[in-house]
Amino acid sequence: MPTPPPTSPDQLPESMPAALLYGIRDIRLENIPVPRPGPGEVLLKLASVGVCGSDVHYYVDGRIGDAIVEAPIIMGHEFSATIAELGAGVESLAVGQLVAVEPAINCGHCEMCLTGHPNLCPNVIFCGTPPVNGVFTHYAVMPAHNCFPLPQGVSAIEGAMLEPLGVAIHTVDLSHLKVGQTIAVLGAGPIGLLIAAVAKAAGAGKIYMTEPLAHRRQFALDYIADEVFDPETQDVVVEIMRATAGRGVDVSFEAAGAQETPEQGAEMVRLGGTLVLCGIPSEDELHLKASLIRRKGLTIKMVRRMKHVYPRAILLVETGMIDVKPVVSHLVALEDIQDAFEMVAGYEDGVIRAVVEMD
Amino acid sequence: MPTPPPTSPDQLPESMPAALLYGIRDIRLENIPVPRPGPGEVLLKLASVGVCGSDVHYYVDGRIGDAIVEAPIIMGHEFSATIAELGAGVESLAVGQLVAVEPAINCGHCEMCLTGHPNLCPNVIFCGTPPVNGVFTHYAVMPAHNCFPLPQGVSAIEGAMLEPLGVAIHTVDLSHLKVGQTIAVLGAGPIGLLIAAVAKAAGAGKIYMTEPLAHRRQFALDYIADEVFDPETQDVVVEIMRATAGRGVDVSFEAAGAQETPEQGAEMVRLGGTLVLCGIPSEDELHLKASLIRRKGLTIKMVRRMKHVYPRAILLVETGMIDVKPVVSHLVALEDIQDAFEMVAGYEDGVIRAVVEMD
Amino acid sequence: MPTPPPTSPDQLPESMPAALLYGIRDIRLENIPVPRPGPGEVLLKLASVGVCGSDVHYYVDGRIGDAIVEAPIIMGHEFSATIAELGAGVESLAVGQLVAVEPAINCGHCEMCLTGHPNLCPNVIFCGTPPVNGVFTHYAVMPAHNCFPLPQGVSAIEGAMLEPLGVAIHTVDLSHLKVGQTIAVLGAGPIGLLIAAVAKAAGAGKIYMTEPLAHRRQFALDYIADEVFDPETQDVVVEIMRATAGRGVDVSFEAAGAQETPEQGAEMVRLGGTLVLCGIPSEDELHLKASLIRRKGLTIKMVRRMKHVYPRAILLVETGMIDVKPVVSHLVALEDIQDAFEMVAGYEDGVIRAVVEMD
Amino acid sequence: MPTPPPTSPDQLPESMPAALLYGIRDIRLENIPVPRPGPGEVLLKLASVGVCGSDVHYYVDGRIGDAIVEAPIIMGHEFSATIAELGAGVESLAVGQLVAVEPAINCGHCEMCLTGHPNLCPNVIFCGTPPVNGVFTHYAVMPAHNCFPLPQGVSAIEGAMLEPLGVAIHTVDLSHLKVGQTIAVLGAGPIGLLIAAVAKAAGAGKIYMTEPLAHRRQFALDYIADEVFDPETQDVVVEIMRATAGRGVDVSFEAAGAQETPEQGAEMVRLGGTLVLCGIPSEDELHLKASLIRRKGLTIKMVRRMKHVYPRAILLVETGMIDVKPVVSHLVALEDIQDAFEMVAGYEDGVIRAVVEMD
Repeated sequence: MPTPPPTSPDQLPESMPAALLYGIRDIRLENIPVPRPGPGEVLLKLASVGVCGSDVHYYVDGRIGDAIVEAPIIMGHEFSATIAELGAGVESLAVGQLVAVEPAINCGHCEMCLTGHPNLCPNVIFCGTPPVNGVFTHYAVMPAHNCFPLPQGVSAIEGAMLEPLGVAIHTVDLSHLKVGQTIAVLGAGPIGLLIAAVAKAAGAGKIYMTEPLAHRRQFALDYIADEVFDPETQDVVVEIMRATAGRGVDVSFEAAGAQETPEQGAEMVRLGGTLVLCGIPSEDELHLKASLIRRKGLTIKMVRRMKHVYPRAILLVETGMIDVKPVVSHLVALEDIQDAFEMVAGYEDGVIRAVVEMD
Repeated sequence: MPTPPPTSPDQLPESMPAALLYGIRDIRLENIPVPRPGPGEVLLKLASVGVCGSDVHYYVDGRIGDAIVEAPIIMGHEFSATIAELGAGVESLAVGQLVAVEPAINCGHCEMCLTGHPNLCPNVIFCGTPPVNGVFTHYAVMPAHNCFPLPQGVSAIEGAMLEPLGVAIHTVDLSHLKVGQTIAVLGAGPIGLLIAAVAKAAGAGKIYMTEPLAHRRQFALDYIADEVFDPETQDVVVEIMRATAGRGVDVSFEAAGAQETPEQGAEMVRLGGTLVLCGIPSEDELHLKASLIRRKGLTIKMVRRMKHVYPRAILLVETGMIDVKPVVSHLVALEDIQDAFEMVAGYEDGVIRAVVEMD
Repeated sequence: MPTPPPTSPDQLPESMPAALLYGIRDIRLENIPVPRPGPGEVLLKLASVGVCGSDVHYYVDGRIGDAIVEAPIIMGHEFSATIAELGAGVESLAVGQLVAVEPAINCGHCEMCLTGHPNLCPNVIFCGTPPVNGVFTHYAVMPAHNCFPLPQGVSAIEGAMLEPLGVAIHTVDLSHLKVGQTIAVLGAGPIGLLIAAVAKAAGAGKIYMTEPLAHRRQFALDYIADEVFDPETQDVVVEIMRATAGRGVDVSFEAAGAQETPEQGAEMVRLGGTLVLCGIPSEDELHLKASLIRRKGLTIKMVRRMKHVYPRAILLVETGMIDVKPVVSHLVALEDIQDAFEMVAGYEDGVIRAVVEMD
Repeated sequence: MPTPPPTSPDQLPESMPAALLYGIRDIRLENIPVPRPGPGEVLLKLASVGVCGSDVHYYVDGRIGDAIVEAPIIMGHEFSATIAELGAGVESLAVGQLVAVEPAINCGHCEMCLTGHPNLCPNVIFCGTPPVNGVFTHYAVMPAHNCFPLPQGVSAIEGAMLEPLGVAIHTVDLSHLKVGQTIAVLGAGPIGLLIAAVAKAAGAGKIYMTEPLAHRRQFALDYIADEVFDPETQDVVVEIMRATAGRGVDVSFEAAGAQETPEQGAEMVRLGGTLVLCGIPSEDELHLKASLIRRKGLTIKMVRRMKHVYPRAILLVETGMIDVKPVVSHLVALEDIQDAFEMVAGYEDGVIRAVVEMD
């Protein structure tokens, strides 16, 4: 594959269109200046940017917990890009490379960073989380060490999906799943589906899912799951206990963010099993019955972003062990981004993940 | 120490007094037949039997969750005894030995037993939990392998305390505490105090406790804690964050069983820390804020009884690394057992643990 | 699939042929009495029995370490069978079922058994290890709880391979491999190949193998490996460091039992990685350089048989996640067993695993 | 305690005496320039510097493995100091503070640093390891974040001992020791003694040690051990198996660096136990019997320096949970450093750890 010729800095435009969220359900395309990289940074020409559920939270509610949209903000943090310009001192990358980008810029000096848990860094700067701008635009600056070159055969769209895939890998890491064990995933949105895909790659022997949307149930069955249950018409705990001959699954992954799914996950997991909570509920109170989880002696793991997963994510996609492409149901242009948000927010039939293509 | 002469079976009385719980706050002493051991079992002459908080739950409420007092039942499951008679085939014990007794009789054949988690055995028979009789009486039969001979220098009263000490050891095991780490224990009842004592023996560098009863706060300070806070007059989270210079403790142990203590434990633990839930709340809904525990990336461990801890419990007491004696605040005779229950149920000043002495 | 009619005990023959190892390279077929099951046991009609490397060790050397062939002994411990007769009290199985059989009979009462490590039971009785007879014959008696019914679609030959597959699963369990990590397997005999297959099912992103026999290298490439190196003509450490861009693999599995392979495994694993030693060297001295493994801060895990793996092994084969059939290169009749041993002992071209079919 | 007045940089001397190792058993005191701190660094006025076994290795052999003394070098890496001058941008420290200093300067950017294992950083710069100078002198420059202020009540001598104590803490961390378990420590030199002290603080119920020097055996008994055995006159494996009633210890710590101690550690550890190798043998070949460690299913952990332990080390000393002072047997002046090395190299009676006091 011929490497594209490097963009000379003097060929860069002075301004670029960006999708600014002004408030609830109000995105406007405006022109803003193209930034320039400082030392240790690179200028990225955006390729593909996924529309994440958290982006849609801000679009619909104007906030996630304490993070509130006040000034207009550019969202977008699942992305691939090509290197457009190298800041001073950057030697590990080359102009023209296609890269996937870790969107969290951690401080590198706190106890969590030093002990290997950058995902828990309290000083993190996170692309597209108020008040930090994200990348629904044409160019952006990031630290060079957040950029992971993609090998031949991994596309820009797949590159954009490495961010949610990374969260899924971290989620499965936390579960200590063993090859041949059985799991349940509650919720067949993009994260639930990718958790199931990672768990399958990690050797899950049986994968049971629950999902209220019919089109997502069908997608989950076609994509990855052994059985999928509808929590609106079925008692999903009864179904999964039956499917496991009364034993329950080794690990439950909660990825629905509903009020009832943590307790369901606890009920369908086996004695001594693990419940991994990944979903973000709109109501903040976690609902669990103390006596049930105590009697079972459960371990509960909370998922916060991801750590150290990009090289593994790239390898899993490159080798075909995980196919993220089916999860991308819609490709849209930047001009159509508000339509894309409406489509995702409306849980329209057939929508799994929308990705904005910048070229 | 001279071994007491073995009780010849024909010297055994035919009947014995037992404390039967007939209903809420209604304990009656009645005479019942002395049992005889079957193959693999031993007859125990009870020495000391602790009055556990769960016994008091049954006394006050007539139930714990689904376990309901229906027929009159003998409570009591924290105990030491001397071997009075050996059932057929028992060779590992001798008549006259003083033993501590693990009160849970697990099935030995289920997945949990085979994989080393007898505390999660769904077929467990547990002394003093309805409808199984416990040991507030003079003689009882148990499997030989539930009996652990006590070395010289460990008394019958200490032997009775090995059961709650064992729960505390299992609790600390689950936390993966490292030497020199800091902890919080919420609740300074007998279990909270013993968790603190085990954590101290395991190298906890600082121990912060919370407790609403003034006499227990003082006891905790004298016995084991570095600082103790009063949740009724102090903001315990603020105090412990201050004491840890804003970092929080490495591990929080919830041993109060109150509605607000799990969330307090989550708030005072550091990023990436561990919250161990040991208390049994009267209301079954667990109160935790999802966003807090997710942002911190917490691990939550649920404590269910104990496993494989008696040899270590005995060694810790024998060597003096843990002193359980101060936790025993009152010794009572079997005839006075209802007074003892009232005293414990009333949280009277100076009451930590009452132990019934059978001789 | 129609269930075969149960063998009525009075239809059982009185005697049966068995392959007795009299000494080095001396196997004789003789008639011996058919055994009968005691309480809790079943009589098995053997279906398929694999010829394991350890069987061949006894055949060629007359011993493995302290286990010495003295009286004539029947070898064979990798096997499937149909239930021919139930001993008293057996209710979990039915006559006619096809089962895979765990060959180790552990005591159930020692510290290792009670804590969930039956593979370390010092009182274990192991089929086909002197002086305990194995199953190169027509009938054998085993405890009912050692027998795992095979689901439809899993054949008797696959059932016999669950024993070495189980060892491979336990080996991968010990490594704590994460999805997307890279591994090396030293040795492409049946165990090395199955370790690679399990690691692949567990998400190994790249699998490098080393093997001196050309036909096994080719088989490994076709079956499972990304690259296979020849230790006789290549510097395998150099090759694998090159393949991993100088980083080394996350986990090295030593399954060759050669003198130089542990050290090679240590050299090709990354800083902070894990070296799992599964092979049984003929010389007992383990060769490792202290400075290398210390500088790397390695964890070394020793593999002893397996624990609790049959349900997972069955599921992995049933779902097609692991295909054990290609590893079975030769099927032989009991009459030809000495030829089969000679073929395996001679490392003949094309020989991976020979299985004796009893019907 | 009044803070000493800050040393004004223009009060600093221009040169200072330093102990240069010219070759085997050849240390010369020479004057060298006083260094100045760069950005992010501090100038330290040395207080106490321990004479480590590795220093003595260089003194006696001129090398440790590949690290060879070529040009004259200043050794010394166990040290406390007061802050004499702050480099640009240093705000976390103040002139006049007494600090303990982590001697390893890791790169902060490699995979090992980012994943929380700075002790395995391949780019580490380590004080006093050829060709990097150490601190047997009056002033030295270190990064500010390597300096840990000592609380009141922790002395400069104790501060110097935090480095070997930190290695001991990391060693015990690697063992996953549980409260009430039993251990063996092979070797009662300073590291062995501190491992035993940390293990005691971490709840080791029984501590058995082995040591050929009579004065160290006595010291170990007085300081920390339950029983100490002499490998020259006793079969230490037999003794420890007897002391543990045939079971063996839960964890063996090898801290002798002898040829036979790893195998002894493996023989005295229980089934399924852990062997931690901390000693540095002069001959690089590690001696272990493959069949023994396989049959036991051991985990072997290799100790490489330490990570993230200073805050815990300080707390353990500050609270008195570990008393490092008795391990310091000799205090010497810088002028007498060669005598101190000879004394340590000669294993003279009564010598445990010598510390050079710079004031």
